Amino acid sequence: MSEYLNDTFKTIHNRKTVRHFTEQTISDELLLELVKAGMAAPTALNTQPWEFIIINDKNTMKKFAGSLQFSKMLDSATSAIVVCTNPEKANGKHMDFAVIDATLASENILLAAESLGLGGAWVALHPKDVAVTYIRGELGIPESIVPLNIIPLGYPTGSEHVKDKFNPDIIHYEKW
Amino acid sequence: MSEYLNDTFKTIHNRKTVRHFTEQTISDELLLELVKAGMAAPTALNTQPWEFIIINDKNTMKKFAGSLQFSKMLDSATSAIVVCTNPEKANGKHMDFAVIDATLASENILLAAESLGLGGAWVALHPKDVAVTYIRGELGIPESIVPLNIIPLGYPTGSEHVKDKFNPDIIHYEKW
Repeated sequence: MSEYLNDTFKTIHNRKTVRHFTEQTISDELLLELVKAGMAAPTALNTQPWEFIIINDKNTMKKFAGSLQFSKMLDSATSAIVVCTNPEKANGKHMDFAVIDATLASENILLAAESLGLGGAWVALHPKDVAVTYIRGELGIPESIVPLNIIPLGYPTGSEHVKDKFNPDIIHYEKW
Repeated sequence: MSEYLNDTFKTIHNRKTVRHFTEQTISDELLLELVKAGMAAPTALNTQPWEFIIINDKNTMKKFAGSLQFSKMLDSATSAIVVCTNPEKANGKHMDFAVIDATLASENILLAAESLGLGGAWVALHPKDVAVTYIRGELGIPESIVPLNIIPLGYPTGSEHVKDKFNPDIIHYEKW
């Protein structure tokens, strides 16, 4: 603990992409807490354009793992959250604000998961049109809604480790 | 504390947009820690397309406050971080991945600030072309780099309070 400024910094620096999960399932209460954490993120003009789909059905996740690029970890995930965004609700109905707001919620979910000893990952849907169309069809998501990502979740087996990505060369002072 | 699952949840749920700051300045060490927290965020294919500009010059911030929409809080902020993104470095050189990655870093900075008793806000630059061009000119940012936001920072006066944004109607189970 002493190497971090506080527990939030510890969570931020220990978050990692987790691809291997044990069979232990996540309680419904904790899954709801993860989504609640997502909803605490800021949004442009407080529009809160996000929507969330909580998935516990292993068949759904295994099907996705076999069909979506970079989603093999859905094979062992015990749950998943699909973070969606609604451009109609976003600031100026602008797609970029819709994506930014749902991204902020997603980072809260990833950090909240890490803080609970859970692991997660970001499986990209938008801006991959094929993936967006596939997931819309599988989950019955309306055309007006954009699924941004799938976050596979579970208790990590411990095989993934943190990367140190600090790079002082990309910090500028006062001007570029 | 007891109302939160842990300190990370406390930080997530207490983060708010802060617009009023005291005159107490933030140490260079803590500003660097905020940027380091930003660099701990995930990025698509680990491309880390972000760049950061730390500003402590009150004249710069006051000038921006007078020129940029929704940026009045830069008048009393003691520091600011401009989070930029480099689409050339992003996954597939795709602008959306560049924006998503820098957004993830920004949420880490906002949460790290809250955890230290600091306040921040998201002043949008991209996708507002006028604001992007203005800040590029003022800070000497190359055309290839997109400034995503300015995060005004400082010690809050305490006049802002958290909003409860929990909305069970936008949570779906298994399918939309």
